[in-house]
Amino acid sequence: MPEIRKLLKENRIEEMKMALENLHPVDIASILANLKDEEARVLFRLLPKDIALETFNELEEEEEAGLLSLLGKNYAAEVLNEMAADERADLFEEMPTEIIQRFLPLMSPEERADVEKLLKEKENSAGSIMTTEYASLRIELTISEALSSIRQMAPRKETIYYLYVIDNDGKLIGVVSLKDLVLGEPSQKIGELMHPEVISVREDQDQEEVARLIGKYNFLAVPVVDNKNKLSGIVTVDDSLDIIKEENTEDIHKMAAMEAPEEEYFKTSFFVLARKRVLWLVVLLVALTFTGNILKGYSHALEALVALAYFIPLLIGTGGNAGAQSSATIIRGLATGELSSQQTFRVMRREIGLGLLLGAILGCFGLGRVLLTERSLLLGLTVGIGLAATIAVATITGAFIPLLLRRMRIDPAVAAGPFIATAIDLAGLIIYFQIAKFLLHV
Amino acid sequence: MPEIRKLLKENRIEEMKMALENLHPVDIASILANLKDEEARVLFRLLPKDIALETFNELEEEEEAGLLSLLGKNYAAEVLNEMAADERADLFEEMPTEIIQRFLPLMSPEERADVEKLLKEKENSAGSIMTTEYASLRIELTISEALSSIRQMAPRKETIYYLYVIDNDGKLIGVVSLKDLVLGEPSQKIGELMHPEVISVREDQDQEEVARLIGKYNFLAVPVVDNKNKLSGIVTVDDSLDIIKEENTEDIHKMAAMEAPEEEYFKTSFFVLARKRVLWLVVLLVALTFTGNILKGYSHALEALVALAYFIPLLIGTGGNAGAQSSATIIRGLATGELSSQQTFRVMRREIGLGLLLGAILGCFGLGRVLLTERSLLLGLTVGIGLAATIAVATITGAFIPLLLRRMRIDPAVAAGPFIATAIDLAGLIIYFQIAKFLLHV
Repeated sequence: MPEIRKLLKENRIEEMKMALENLHPVDIASILANLKDEEARVLFRLLPKDIALETFNELEEEEEAGLLSLLGKNYAAEVLNEMAADERADLFEEMPTEIIQRFLPLMSPEERADVEKLLKEKENSAGSIMTTEYASLRIELTISEALSSIRQMAPRKETIYYLYVIDNDGKLIGVVSLKDLVLGEPSQKIGELMHPEVISVREDQDQEEVARLIGKYNFLAVPVVDNKNKLSGIVTVDDSLDIIKEENTEDIHKMAAMEAPEEEYFKTSFFVLARKRVLWLVVLLVALTFTGNILKGYSHALEALVALAYFIPLLIGTGGNAGAQSSATIIRGLATGELSSQQTFRVMRREIGLGLLLGAILGCFGLGRVLLTERSLLLGLTVGIGLAATIAVATITGAFIPLLLRRMRIDPAVAAGPFIATAIDLAGLIIYFQIAKFLLHV
Repeated sequence: MPEIRKLLKENRIEEMKMALENLHPVDIASILANLKDEEARVLFRLLPKDIALETFNELEEEEEAGLLSLLGKNYAAEVLNEMAADERADLFEEMPTEIIQRFLPLMSPEERADVEKLLKEKENSAGSIMTTEYASLRIELTISEALSSIRQMAPRKETIYYLYVIDNDGKLIGVVSLKDLVLGEPSQKIGELMHPEVISVREDQDQEEVARLIGKYNFLAVPVVDNKNKLSGIVTVDDSLDIIKEENTEDIHKMAAMEAPEEEYFKTSFFVLARKRVLWLVVLLVALTFTGNILKGYSHALEALVALAYFIPLLIGTGGNAGAQSSATIIRGLATGELSSQQTFRVMRREIGLGLLLGAILGCFGLGRVLLTERSLLLGLTVGIGLAATIAVATITGAFIPLLLRRMRIDPAVAAGPFIATAIDLAGLIIYFQIAKFLLHV
């Protein structure tokens, strides 16, 4: 990186070309992203056309938009017409309207139609992430005819390792791999070789399901069809890696009571970061203010026996931890598809058992803790039973709420640690003081 | 599924064969896993050999071991010799020694050596997850010679889409894709066509880094080399999807203070689930018992003004939430490689700013809440300032501890929500009562 910068400064073009030749487009893209505008323009123009395109596809959307406006009109048009169709749709999705208006006319009518089609798809659906640059074959071709047709189209296709067989109406009727073609006899017909049972996804299917399907079957790509089974695009395995990473990041943020990030940490401004955190902190704080009302309601008990207050953090803290555990287990199981809301009954049977067992074990610890310093069996029983009941309630609630949310088609990830903990703070205090009233008559 | 079972019961072999023909091996495997032993044996023997092998590769390790012991010795030997090398290593890793002793002699000497080699690799390293069934070529071949060599070896290789070029010593000197071969002229030499700058991983590199690399470069596979740059295997993109899923599940469990699961939820016994949860609950409970000591230390203050107790859950709960947010952000950033511990200074500068800002905002809410019901400005200020300071400390600690753990080569995921919350419970109480002493003279 500093080396490339030095070569650029000193205008040592030939050496730079050589240095770039040994780099992967992914690495060239990350260098480009860190250069100043003029440097980036010079470096990009030095790249051979095919490498330039591959590099461009690897840039972030804002970087792409920035670079496009630095290139001349002709080169920008060429890049836009030839870049990967799915990346281009993402780019246009991010660009402000006035810039779209500047770039759209540069493109050929077909590519423009392609962008418009992809932009119309539902967000986060298979249709919105697919590329239209799939390789297709006709059923009547022989292998050798198919191979020469593949040679023609290969440069413009996202992958040629899976070849989709379509009929006259564009309907998906089979799939064949390049491996099958290479292993077959040149005179064999595609129709004999193809697998007619194609696993496909619908355009409106969620991207998470698409990624899961690709992982389940170890596919390199999966075809996307419309409601008439017409092939409209493909989603490739590298996209599914990106989707899984993005969805996991989203889940982890939601589980910690934050809005999902749109950008990397250092690309997000300070105030956006603050905004994504403050909203839920305030909501939870407002919910937590009711703990004050509950405690005030029990002020007589507290005044009579101030030692009751000593064990409040222990009780609600442990309850919160137990709830965080069960909710995380269930949320993750739902996210990977290992659990479904149809299994609510089976899950709850286990979690009720776990809640009771964990409550009993930790309740004993609580009892022991109180006896150690307070020498009051009744206070010990209050804390022990309170702890046991709170943990049981926390474990059960932590498992149930995500299952319920999934049934209501709300993302279960929001029902994790902080939310369960807040609910448990409220419930735990009431449980604790009711037991205290009963046992200690305060 | 019920249909297959019916056909099995009624011994309708031909119809069953037809039904199975239309199914993907992944789906046959999930049917097999749900059948009784004898049913599974019958169904498996009905499958054509190649489909049977693919199906076997998709089973879980215990299911594989179970099925193997149901098959005759000869068929079991055949399956073991021909199944995917990486899956086989996983299988032998899971099997108890006495069963290994029964199966090892069934295998051919080469396959046995292969298993022994893979078993010796460090757990979770590139070497332990790679397969030795890669396709390699010699530099001097022409494309047409290469293609006929590929036709020979294809059935025994994990992928033929990437072909690795090795020299006489087995050293990795280049890579070429099947696409390059199909697009080239038959007389072209591999040496002209290949990319000599191969991105590879070392055998001892962590599987998470391998998966990240495959994702970064959109590879279908990455070669694994030993310390002399000799090619020893490949890791394919479908493995990297599995790794990412597994690592994310692990992180989410650790972040909720649980030991990472080894199996799916319903495949894990009730008591194993309980054990994985109870350990950390007890550790955190023991840490939380010190909150009792702290509060007892301030019993005079509590007796003088019992209203101080009303706001304890609000204070420590909100602090815990703020800590959960910053720790989740940093842990996830470290996991995706977006952040590194080298950036500690830059991260901390932001998080200190965020902690102060969020503390100030929520402190105002806290002040308002107290004024609403208690009508004491000094108590309001105590809660407000206590809340602000606790949130700042929580945010900063939540960000710092994961960075510190990463530097110490400990998985930062353990420093999430529950752990930070416990630390904040202790720190927050001291902050709150010290402020109370100063402002309220209690």
